[in-house]
Amino acid sequence: MGFRKLLGLGTLAAFSGAALPLPALAQAAPASGRPEIKFTTTDAFSMADIPAYKGDNRDIYAHIEKNKAAHIANLQRWVRQRSISAQNDGVREMAELAAADFRKIGFQEVEVVPTGGHPGVFAYYNAGAKKTLVVYMMLDVQPVEPEDWKVPPFEGAIVEDHPLGRVLMARGATNTKGPERAFLNTIESIIAVRGKLPVNLMIVAESEEELGSPHYPEIIAKYADRLKAAAGSIYPGGGQSPADGAVSMQLGNKGILYVELEAKGNPTTGGPQKAEIHSSWKATTDAPAWRLTQALATLTSPDGNTINIPGYYDRIRQPSEEEQRLFNGTLAGWEKRQLTVRKGFSIDHWYDGMEARQSLSRYLFDTTLNIDGIATGYDGPGMKTILPHRAYAKLDSRLVPDQTPDEMLALMRKHLDAKGFADIEIRKLSGYPASQTSVSAPLVRAVLGTYNKYGLTVDVSPRSGGSRPSYVFTQTLGLPDVTLAIGHGADAHAPNEYLVIDPKPGSKIFSLTQMEGFYADVLYALAATK
Amino acid sequence: MGFRKLLGLGTLAAFSGAALPLPALAQAAPASGRPEIKFTTTDAFSMADIPAYKGDNRDIYAHIEKNKAAHIANLQRWVRQRSISAQNDGVREMAELAAADFRKIGFQEVEVVPTGGHPGVFAYYNAGAKKTLVVYMMLDVQPVEPEDWKVPPFEGAIVEDHPLGRVLMARGATNTKGPERAFLNTIESIIAVRGKLPVNLMIVAESEEELGSPHYPEIIAKYADRLKAAAGSIYPGGGQSPADGAVSMQLGNKGILYVELEAKGNPTTGGPQKAEIHSSWKATTDAPAWRLTQALATLTSPDGNTINIPGYYDRIRQPSEEEQRLFNGTLAGWEKRQLTVRKGFSIDHWYDGMEARQSLSRYLFDTTLNIDGIATGYDGPGMKTILPHRAYAKLDSRLVPDQTPDEMLALMRKHLDAKGFADIEIRKLSGYPASQTSVSAPLVRAVLGTYNKYGLTVDVSPRSGGSRPSYVFTQTLGLPDVTLAIGHGADAHAPNEYLVIDPKPGSKIFSLTQMEGFYADVLYALAATK
Repeated sequence: MGFRKLLGLGTLAAFSGAALPLPALAQAAPASGRPEIKFTTTDAFSMADIPAYKGDNRDIYAHIEKNKAAHIANLQRWVRQRSISAQNDGVREMAELAAADFRKIGFQEVEVVPTGGHPGVFAYYNAGAKKTLVVYMMLDVQPVEPEDWKVPPFEGAIVEDHPLGRVLMARGATNTKGPERAFLNTIESIIAVRGKLPVNLMIVAESEEELGSPHYPEIIAKYADRLKAAAGSIYPGGGQSPADGAVSMQLGNKGILYVELEAKGNPTTGGPQKAEIHSSWKATTDAPAWRLTQALATLTSPDGNTINIPGYYDRIRQPSEEEQRLFNGTLAGWEKRQLTVRKGFSIDHWYDGMEARQSLSRYLFDTTLNIDGIATGYDGPGMKTILPHRAYAKLDSRLVPDQTPDEMLALMRKHLDAKGFADIEIRKLSGYPASQTSVSAPLVRAVLGTYNKYGLTVDVSPRSGGSRPSYVFTQTLGLPDVTLAIGHGADAHAPNEYLVIDPKPGSKIFSLTQMEGFYADVLYALAATK
Repeated sequence: MGFRKLLGLGTLAAFSGAALPLPALAQAAPASGRPEIKFTTTDAFSMADIPAYKGDNRDIYAHIEKNKAAHIANLQRWVRQRSISAQNDGVREMAELAAADFRKIGFQEVEVVPTGGHPGVFAYYNAGAKKTLVVYMMLDVQPVEPEDWKVPPFEGAIVEDHPLGRVLMARGATNTKGPERAFLNTIESIIAVRGKLPVNLMIVAESEEELGSPHYPEIIAKYADRLKAAAGSIYPGGGQSPADGAVSMQLGNKGILYVELEAKGNPTTGGPQKAEIHSSWKATTDAPAWRLTQALATLTSPDGNTINIPGYYDRIRQPSEEEQRLFNGTLAGWEKRQLTVRKGFSIDHWYDGMEARQSLSRYLFDTTLNIDGIATGYDGPGMKTILPHRAYAKLDSRLVPDQTPDEMLALMRKHLDAKGFADIEIRKLSGYPASQTSVSAPLVRAVLGTYNKYGLTVDVSPRSGGSRPSYVFTQTLGLPDVTLAIGHGADAHAPNEYLVIDPKPGSKIFSLTQMEGFYADVLYALAATK
């Protein structure tokens, strides 16, 4: 849900383990209200079609290597500044620290941006270049449970004996102060060596990613006219597989509608209104828990896999030729990877026993309706005999392009009303549409060309099955939007979060200085596009 | 659920407040799969048909009054002995204390009875009388939160300034050491004045009432042959309304089937088996939360008020003539009392807008299926996007005579299988059948006659809508079973639990010594029956 949290299929590369044999199919595919997903081309996208970036930036790499100790110290300085947005702990101080860094690096325009919540930071570096690149940053981090950590989470410890090598272990090391400050190290080295950057930069940072980015659209809106003129937006964040150094790129995200449905006793429909009552009164009394259950059950087929809300699938368009080519290009990898994914999740088979083609097309091109939680009454051990006065469920629906959260919400409301469940309240907690970036965008080609320079295995997918509000870049601003998935860190929301600084010999993971060199290549590759 | 916890309609007398106007009917009564409850007689049971008990026990009353201080001290001694069954705190010591009291009073046979859990106590007083009475006792109490109490909960404090008068305030004061030890005070006074009791007594005490009486059937089974020869079983417990001193008698209890239904990821039906997964995978993955929701929804009509399990209503018999007469006798009181009940529960109307006759007949003669709780996934504030790997619900079904828990369980299993939900696990947590005692039983007539002696308003109901396993008396032993609802105490499972010792002037509540006199009358009234 977080703004930049879900790396979608890309994160799957982190799973390892032998492939499982395909399980016997337990269920025949039922007649389905889900739209059939049709393919009209067998052409497949190939990384071989993208020319490798060939620029020579060895002078910059050398500067980065020479200043490695100072660069590491910069990362440590950032992770040492607490910035837990959920607890309002150090958040403003972090914004001020970032703003001071931007000024020191040479950004001519730096502003701490007030919002309805925590402040953001806008920074503009005018290189007098033809192209401008928008850089997304998040300055906040998740809360910590210090007692679960091997090292103090805000000490910025360098741990030498991590299984993957020498790492920075701290809250924010990989999510995402580490890669962000590494990107700034790159900027400093380029300016030191070349005098100025090859592109103009607009950093648009927020301090509420871990809260679901509720005010990020405010920050974007303030600078929208200037941001729209950019060549695209990037997000520096590590995502290499520790097994083979492979990376992935998702050219879009699903949107989301997140709602709570609640049934409660009320004067019209009956039921207790203030508190649970003794369950013997079910003999005479309407029960909100049954109302909610019955209402929920109307939303899907008995197997829970087809949405029965009229019109819910109507907006789903067939995959475009580009999406099909990307799909065809990624299918072979998915055929193997899905077994690893299922093993990691302890899932014996996908629903209806779907094979790779069907499961990948559902994952990329279909909408979902999922129960995140249901709560009513007593859930402790043993027995309690009560008739609860309220019952609620949390549901999320992943949206594909052309579905909008408000239209889907209206369809759900209309359906419940038509089925006699006008008493069920629907509360929208979040909603935003899908995003999409074309693989032919110059920024995308520049990033893929840079991956090709290093001979990296890249899985390019038309989108992630996960959601993030990258529509603010692709729809609000009309920009191509790309995450830079180089380097490796993990345990983003867990204890002992880390970013690899120096991987063990033989590893395919990029070191910190290689990450920084890669970022330089991307900026020059973008500058070189027409 | 506890063995003697639910006093059913009787507890409603404690509600006060003005009657509400009848609400407008929000829903028309739908075509229903519930059996119509038919009445064939308009005859009504009346207390006036029961001769008042006329025996003269003033010598016993005098002895009770004279020994009042010692009698209060006996109650204090019992409540001072901790006996929290849930925490195994003082339970055996309480059983030993009770056994010692029984021996001292003159019970010739006293045995602490080991069970699979906490011990019970069996005690036999042979008066050489024609009639034998079984007395149920519970020796355990609920846990306490001492900081919430005005007085230490195990000090046996006499509180002078309670709104209802002078009270014993302690854990167990009313539930149920107070009334039990008061009954023993009566026995001591009778023996002191008259030399022996008018009936033989068999006390069958347990120490696990607050745990749901899991081993009480073991204790009953050990003495079943002797217990079966008794004239009935009684339970001394206070239940007078503080408003007007009215009492109630329920001549039976509903049984219960309590189950957990669980859906979880498994190899056959799919879904994640070990942990929740990211909700984006709903696109390819079976969801236990949907399976449970869909399975639950097949159990009832959309309004949740009709059970759709084939055969579930088949065993329900029409009310007997006696049950109808009792129903007709209690209906007028219910017409007013239901408004007070609904007000207390914040319920605007019963389901389908039922009026008094329909609601009371459903409450007494119909079975139920209630959701006590559902739990799956995330139930905290805001959003979490997960596909839970398990989902479960707790359900209880109140059973009327001729329904058995195992048959109802089998019908539920068969129905879920037939609907394609063989993957839903059903776990039975508890089950026992309904109990029924005839109003014409000599013991019942003796108790009602004693109420008439004192001119008490008595609501005699064919049964309670609540459950307790009194079938061990009525079915296992074939005995009439009656609760003595004289005196008043409250806050049984809460802080500041109390039993009124001396009510304020003008109150209709019986004092402790009046309770003890009443118990003496009941024993002599029973002895006098043919």
